[in-house]
Amino acid sequence: MLIDGERRELISARDRGLQYGDGLFETIAVRRQHTCLWPRHMARLEDGCHRLGIPMPDPERLAAEAATEVGDATQGALKLILTRGRGPRGYRVPESAVPMRVLECSPAPDFPIAWWSSGIRLRWCSTRLSINPQTAGLKHLNRLEQVLARSEWRDPAIAEGLMLDTQGRVVEGTMSNLFVMTAGRLVTPELSQCGVAGVMRALVIDTARTLGLSVSRVTLRPADLERADGLFMTNALVGIWPVRELQGRAMDPTAVPGPLLDAVREQAGFD
Amino acid sequence: MLIDGERRELISARDRGLQYGDGLFETIAVRRQHTCLWPRHMARLEDGCHRLGIPMPDPERLAAEAATEVGDATQGALKLILTRGRGPRGYRVPESAVPMRVLECSPAPDFPIAWWSSGIRLRWCSTRLSINPQTAGLKHLNRLEQVLARSEWRDPAIAEGLMLDTQGRVVEGTMSNLFVMTAGRLVTPELSQCGVAGVMRALVIDTARTLGLSVSRVTLRPADLERADGLFMTNALVGIWPVRELQGRAMDPTAVPGPLLDAVREQAGFD
Repeated sequence: MLIDGERRELISARDRGLQYGDGLFETIAVRRQHTCLWPRHMARLEDGCHRLGIPMPDPERLAAEAATEVGDATQGALKLILTRGRGPRGYRVPESAVPMRVLECSPAPDFPIAWWSSGIRLRWCSTRLSINPQTAGLKHLNRLEQVLARSEWRDPAIAEGLMLDTQGRVVEGTMSNLFVMTAGRLVTPELSQCGVAGVMRALVIDTARTLGLSVSRVTLRPADLERADGLFMTNALVGIWPVRELQGRAMDPTAVPGPLLDAVREQAGFD
Repeated sequence: MLIDGERRELISARDRGLQYGDGLFETIAVRRQHTCLWPRHMARLEDGCHRLGIPMPDPERLAAEAATEVGDATQGALKLILTRGRGPRGYRVPESAVPMRVLECSPAPDFPIAWWSSGIRLRWCSTRLSINPQTAGLKHLNRLEQVLARSEWRDPAIAEGLMLDTQGRVVEGTMSNLFVMTAGRLVTPELSQCGVAGVMRALVIDTARTLGLSVSRVTLRPADLERADGLFMTNALVGIWPVRELQGRAMDPTAVPGPLLDAVREQAGFD
């Protein structure tokens, strides 16, 4: 682990990341010493910094630290946390605050290989995502809703849980974004009210368009998923997981177009 | 500062408090070596632990650590943070997680004395509070909305900002709860959808009832505040601040019943 460029594992208890969740993070796939989709992760981090008023660290310095932390890892997950830094008591942002960065490369999560090839089983979560356009899309450190949603099940055969917002719209999984195939068209929930705008989601949208597939950001209700030809979930570490079951209901995991799967994998550097 | 009972100031960067805001906190007034309203703070912490599924620490141990941390302080603010503890990557709560506690006694905030005697100036914040009944009322560590709201103004003459929820209802200040006096009746926003159920708010409600004052939890809109005879704000460190101005509009800071002010101050141990 690297904290502010130094090899240590402890941070100040006065850091606003702990005190208020005042910060952002990125979770980056590592393949053969390479940080996959690094420019997209940096662009999202910069957007998050801009929206929260946190100074963006020098991307070259981050890249150098990432390379140091990744070392000779052939596969892994690099987590980057950026907080607003330390401050005295109180919500007010101190002018003296210096952002704090944590980089940690962990082994890649050992999900069953069949989740990519045969699809995953999904459930509905009862924990709702709250709505706030001001923080929607951001990968910030306020993640209690995801923690509560993920604690709703222990069955290791269930890969992911789908979350609705407090108005009943389908938003995303606890750690992934959702895509829905219906009649040859691809849709994904629009995230102007809540949710995390995933880097892999953006890559899937861009890649689908390059392939001439229709893809749009829409409002989805649970019934729209039951009518779908197929679903898949995306995240920066796993890429694409087709869905073979939603809350006990069988889905067709082969509905994801093969060319899209191949192109995304290649673009992400997952080969 | 005491962390898990030891005098240190560093925590693991893998603590879920930093990673996800997975924890709770209390801010406790200190007067003459005494932690004010300690039983109420412990009751709220225990309720929060129950709702988040975090094991509640032994209250006697917490009390002993609080006494150690407070030492011979005559005035101060004791902040207690309780997180779910460390874990591997991922939202899932590890069964091995051991809660982590931070206690820090800081000097009491040096607000102008006139804020108690002559009242404070309030503004409206544009940052909204998101709605989620599952976390409403909790003093959890996901406080980005408060951070963003508090960063809306720098004028030190403005003591506090009022926040609406995403549906336009008045909820609270960035760091305090709101009470409204209208025609001799006292109301405060109900907090079933969002907001922090403050310890001082609860004391004011209980004390008002003891004094025979009518007090109820209601839904409030901004217009209700403009029609009010008077407003006041409460928090565990300051007690009660009357309001003398709301967004440039003069309010009557003497509308708070004197017997209520006196009784709350006494009950809180602020004399």
